[in-house]
Amino acid sequence: MKTIFLIGAGKSTSFLIRYLLEHAQTENWQLIVGDVSSEIAQKKIGSHPRAKAVAFDVNNETERRNFIAQSDLVISMLPAHMHVPVAKDCLTYGKHLVTASYVSNEMQALDAEAKAKGVILLNEIGVDPGIDHLSAMKLVDKIKAEGGTIKLFESFTGGLVAPESDNNPWNYKFTWNPRNVVLAGQGGAVKFIQEGNYKYIPYHRLFRRTEIVEIEEWGKFEGYANRDSLRYRDLYDMHDIPTFYRGTFRRPGFCRAWDTFVQLGANDDTYTIEGSENMTYREFINLFLAYNPWDSVELKLMHYMKFDQDDAIMDKLRWLGIFERKKIGLKNATPAQILQKILEEKWSMQEDDKDMLVMFHKIGYEHQGKEKMIESSMVVLGDDALYTAMAKTVGLPMAIATRHILSGAISTPGVTVPLTAEYYTHLLPELEKYGVIFNEKEVPYKGY
Amino acid sequence: MKTIFLIGAGKSTSFLIRYLLEHAQTENWQLIVGDVSSEIAQKKIGSHPRAKAVAFDVNNETERRNFIAQSDLVISMLPAHMHVPVAKDCLTYGKHLVTASYVSNEMQALDAEAKAKGVILLNEIGVDPGIDHLSAMKLVDKIKAEGGTIKLFESFTGGLVAPESDNNPWNYKFTWNPRNVVLAGQGGAVKFIQEGNYKYIPYHRLFRRTEIVEIEEWGKFEGYANRDSLRYRDLYDMHDIPTFYRGTFRRPGFCRAWDTFVQLGANDDTYTIEGSENMTYREFINLFLAYNPWDSVELKLMHYMKFDQDDAIMDKLRWLGIFERKKIGLKNATPAQILQKILEEKWSMQEDDKDMLVMFHKIGYEHQGKEKMIESSMVVLGDDALYTAMAKTVGLPMAIATRHILSGAISTPGVTVPLTAEYYTHLLPELEKYGVIFNEKEVPYKGY
Repeated sequence: MKTIFLIGAGKSTSFLIRYLLEHAQTENWQLIVGDVSSEIAQKKIGSHPRAKAVAFDVNNETERRNFIAQSDLVISMLPAHMHVPVAKDCLTYGKHLVTASYVSNEMQALDAEAKAKGVILLNEIGVDPGIDHLSAMKLVDKIKAEGGTIKLFESFTGGLVAPESDNNPWNYKFTWNPRNVVLAGQGGAVKFIQEGNYKYIPYHRLFRRTEIVEIEEWGKFEGYANRDSLRYRDLYDMHDIPTFYRGTFRRPGFCRAWDTFVQLGANDDTYTIEGSENMTYREFINLFLAYNPWDSVELKLMHYMKFDQDDAIMDKLRWLGIFERKKIGLKNATPAQILQKILEEKWSMQEDDKDMLVMFHKIGYEHQGKEKMIESSMVVLGDDALYTAMAKTVGLPMAIATRHILSGAISTPGVTVPLTAEYYTHLLPELEKYGVIFNEKEVPYKGY
Repeated sequence: MKTIFLIGAGKSTSFLIRYLLEHAQTENWQLIVGDVSSEIAQKKIGSHPRAKAVAFDVNNETERRNFIAQSDLVISMLPAHMHVPVAKDCLTYGKHLVTASYVSNEMQALDAEAKAKGVILLNEIGVDPGIDHLSAMKLVDKIKAEGGTIKLFESFTGGLVAPESDNNPWNYKFTWNPRNVVLAGQGGAVKFIQEGNYKYIPYHRLFRRTEIVEIEEWGKFEGYANRDSLRYRDLYDMHDIPTFYRGTFRRPGFCRAWDTFVQLGANDDTYTIEGSENMTYREFINLFLAYNPWDSVELKLMHYMKFDQDDAIMDKLRWLGIFERKKIGLKNATPAQILQKILEEKWSMQEDDKDMLVMFHKIGYEHQGKEKMIESSMVVLGDDALYTAMAKTVGLPMAIATRHILSGAISTPGVTVPLTAEYYTHLLPELEKYGVIFNEKEVPYKGY
């Protein structure tokens, strides 16, 4: 019998745990789910005979080592910066590790030891990063095998609300960590390359440099650039590709409206606001506008942003309630924390709302002197508020990879990310059975 | 005989060293000038019998301690982050220290020990901070002594080019560290308070939130807000003042044009540009604009910034040469480094150029039920390229404070900044003899 130790039983683990439980008997697994709250862990596993819920504190070294020592594979759903002590214990006891997070420098430093000990420290096996790697690399390898040369690579992912639950003027709800959405893109210039030209966008102009992508049956999406596409160009072994761009999807119009908060500085997380607790939403917005004792906050904002009187953005902003005389009620809060609170009142998923995960790749290449282009798109809808598209696309790749590592089908050791055929041949066909399906079509080549 | 050890003999020490040499005989001083280059130090002191130039490396602990041990007072012209080891040695050997830098947390932590040992660790005794403290506190203390209540405090300083040498469309030249000018304002939101309303401006909107101040005989200046005025409000013991604002002066029109670089992200110092060495100035600007194989960089920039065809900003930008096909020649440079190089070709002071230092305070107060306002302005012109207004206004306060500390006239120990009568009564009258003169006038009260 193999023992899987899952750390963290939060919102995004519904599909992951269901898959593990469904396969526990046939694969001869025992599942231990550790969470700060053993009740939450217990609720997730129900009365399954092969599963056990435990209270677990990752900062308790003795406890952590104890659980890892008795497992065969550890799945960590912890925040990214907390994986490393777990990974080190996995190396000590020779256990495999699976996470959905980006490889940190500290994690990468464990590579040589992992290889020497035959341990797999698998990262970036969620949706983005994760399914994007698998699906893109499968396409790229196929094109290369047929003698093609990749010239253009663009890839977008978006966690959005399903059309049937899309009932607000932003066409957006929080389907993932709201804090990450509020801070998205902060912390450095965006970098990519287009037709051989390096391009850099400062954060404060990011949401005005969008492009529109249409996906058949699903309509139009608006993409803004992700942080450092150049890093990915190297990771994907496409050092000399003239166009490489990774982005995030929203529905059209979102970014220009969101830019209002960026321009105000209303999503700054680096300082706290004096007297935030007793301030109103309206006063919060006014903090970022020039002082004037008589003009309205609305007019000052329209003037600041150069919005026309009839600009639909004002409807979006009014709908959020940012001009209301409602108390914030958060003590010593940063602008980002206050904005998050305001947004959560409006953008939270309701009980019967469904989410949607959209991924899109555009790959241009040259084949026997001809320019060709393939578009590949994936749209996954959530089943309900628990079994969301986000939980499915993050959790199932982790779960399926876990199965193949334990069976020995996936066996290359080291600190790794799922870029190779070893991963996509094992994972993509099974993901398809769960509805994670890419539609590929050839389209006329279009560069810039 | 008292020994003064001056660390650093750079550009801004001309007036400082001249003052120390001029007073060496009457005050019975010996001056040791230590610099990485002993030639530079030697050139500054000439053949003065009471001065000695030495090669000095602050990172050489033995050497550092040796020189500090044999001195009575140390003047550090080092970059701000390098004062602390010097200050610690000063404490060890019971010597006073004078710097023009802001008090860092590490410096502040030495306060108790300095007080216990009777050592003065004096900081912020240049121009800004420095003369601004002295002149503002003198005014404030006077108003308070007469029974007034301060309601409004605004203060601006600008290092500019003298009118007679002002011959470019920006009305600006570098009279201080160019790198600091390129990066000015970066690193956090600006904070101040107006009529009891806290105001926060993100960096990327800072240069569009200016105000115009006119100084008789000297014309109009444009002020933009300095980083954290709220910190100063506490330092000046004005915790409850409804309006408190500190700013930097440029000539009108500078900030709106400078904002172009901010919007492009062309003064970002956090990453390096791929292939910067062989790139042209024009290609550098194009890095930040959308890719397009046929439109001109000029038109793309005008569109990006919403400049009209006839906007004078385009003249300013063209004059800088940013659209030229001239090689950058800097390897792996950050945008900020490249921009600095471009600017230095145009904004450097010429041999016969003179600089100008402008300071302006506006203080509103209530006195016996009446609202009153005082404006106080100071304009200092440089003598020539060596004896600049900047060197005078930074160096003389340090030099004069040094004299009064060594004579015992200034004697309060601890980590200190010159906010008290002990400083301004000793320094301001002597500064006046050197032409550092504040013109105070009562004006009609004007709030917001």
